[in-house]
Amino acid sequence: MTDRPSPDPAGPTRELVSDVFARGCTSRAAFEDVTSKWASLVLLALGEGRYRFNALRRRVDGVSERMLSQTLQILERDGMLTREVLTTIPPRVEYSLTPLGARVAKRLRGLADLLESAVPELQSARDAHERTRG
Amino acid sequence: MTDRPSPDPAGPTRELVSDVFARGCTSRAAFEDVTSKWASLVLLALGEGRYRFNALRRRVDGVSERMLSQTLQILERDGMLTREVLTTIPPRVEYSLTPLGARVAKRLRGLADLLESAVPELQSARDAHERTRG
Repeated sequence: MTDRPSPDPAGPTRELVSDVFARGCTSRAAFEDVTSKWASLVLLALGEGRYRFNALRRRVDGVSERMLSQTLQILERDGMLTREVLTTIPPRVEYSLTPLGARVAKRLRGLADLLESAVPELQSARDAHERTRG
Repeated sequence: MTDRPSPDPAGPTRELVSDVFARGCTSRAAFEDVTSKWASLVLLALGEGRYRFNALRRRVDGVSERMLSQTLQILERDGMLTREVLTTIPPRVEYSLTPLGARVAKRLRGLADLLESAVPELQSARDAHERTRG
C-alpha cells in the first residue's frame, strides 16, 4: 500500500526538471491548454489535415465561433498550430498543425481511439454506478 | 489544400460508430471527463500507485478538497477508478485505477512526457508570439 516512493517536494525545483504536477511549470500550462474542452477536439481535427475556420467549426461539433477563435489563439501561442492567410480572392485563412502540434494530436488521437473502443465498458460502468446509487 | 476527405455527417450515426467528435456519444463525454483540468492530473497521479485522499490532494498541486472529491466521483462513475474502504482503525479510504483507468492514465502520461520534454519549444513559441504581438 505504500510501495510508491514518497515524492521530494524540493527535488524537481532544485533540479529544474519540468513537471506537469507543478503549478507554474510551462509543461503544466501547456498540458492544461491542450487538454481543455475544445482545444483537444481542435487538435484531433487538425490531426486529420488543414482546415478553414468554418469547416473546423463544423467538425468540432458544438463549439461556438467565439470559443473556437479563442482556442485557436491559445494553441497558436503555444506553438501547436500555424495560421496561414492564402492570397486568394477572397483571401482564405487555413489552420494546420506544427510538428509539435502533430505529436500532441497523435497522443490525443490514441486516447480518443481507446475511449471510442471502450464504449461498452464505459456504459456498463455508468449502469453499475446508477444501480448502486439508485 | 483540399486533400482531406469531406466527412459524411450521416455516416457515423448510420453505422453506430462511436466518435469523440459527436455530441451525445459516450466516448465524447468520457474524453471530456478524463481530459478535464483536475481529472487528467488525478489519473496521472493514480498511474503512479494507490493514493489516499489527502496524499492525492497534495500530489495534485492546487486542487481544492471539493474539486478533488467531485473529480473522484466522476472518474469512479466512468469506471476509471475504484474507491476502497480499508477496515483499519481509523478506517482508510484508498483510490486506485481500474484496468481501463490504467490504460487511459498511460496515454495521458505519454502526453505529459511529451510536453515536459517540449518545454524549450513551448517557451520559444510563447516568446515568438509575444514579440509578434508586442
